[in-house]
Amino acid sequence: MERVASPVDFTEEELSLVRFGADGLVPAIVQDAGDGTVLMLGYMDGEALRRTLQTGRSWFWSRSRGEYWCKGETSGDRQWVRAVRYDCDGDAILLVVDQDGNGACHTGARSCFYRSFGSGDSSGSAGSPVAHG
Amino acid sequence: MERVASPVDFTEEELSLVRFGADGLVPAIVQDAGDGTVLMLGYMDGEALRRTLQTGRSWFWSRSRGEYWCKGETSGDRQWVRAVRYDCDGDAILLVVDQDGNGACHTGARSCFYRSFGSGDSSGSAGSPVAHG
Repeated sequence: MERVASPVDFTEEELSLVRFGADGLVPAIVQDAGDGTVLMLGYMDGEALRRTLQTGRSWFWSRSRGEYWCKGETSGDRQWVRAVRYDCDGDAILLVVDQDGNGACHTGARSCFYRSFGSGDSSGSAGSPVAHG
Repeated sequence: MERVASPVDFTEEELSLVRFGADGLVPAIVQDAGDGTVLMLGYMDGEALRRTLQTGRSWFWSRSRGEYWCKGETSGDRQWVRAVRYDCDGDAILLVVDQDGNGACHTGARSCFYRSFGSGDSSGSAGSPVAHG
């Protein structure tokens, strides 16, 4: 399915309600628009949030690489933003997206949250590089 | 409906895969077990995570108040933990819960993420104290 980017309307007043942490970042949860699966959590600074709203694609700040990244631009696992929500105290973002490809996780899993406590699935890629994208 | 706490099995090996930030905290997304709504985002240190697993209730570290809190212990809006997931690089937690009462938000909203960019709903309680619980 060929998806199309839809920029999200926003106002400066809305942007001013977002409270970035001491490191200039706010956590951004990414949820699948179709079935509500929580896909991943990334971090945004003000610029990444603006790019996300203006382009309708998900932009994050990579804490490990120290650079902006547009999700899926390398892997093809793009996210098409359908809504950008913010929480009661403005210090968390929720992106609702249509997810392309296999999923959001660099391991190939659909969701980064593919392991549960008590399920015996603690092996896997926990030791691998933090290389979303 | 009277709900019952169900402790979550875990191993020390699993706990060792969780990577806490420089501030000793890891973000914890809370999702409704019934319909997948993302309810809130809180923060846990190692002790809050252990308490959550051992009690089957959601425990967080309040950054604003500098203390542990068990969600809903004051308000009655309790969360009964059904699964605790962790992400590929171990630096985010996902709690799947049955939510009691009106919801997770101190404003009375079901979800803390009740506002969207571009929807004209930027008024509300963004300026109110960060007083989950």
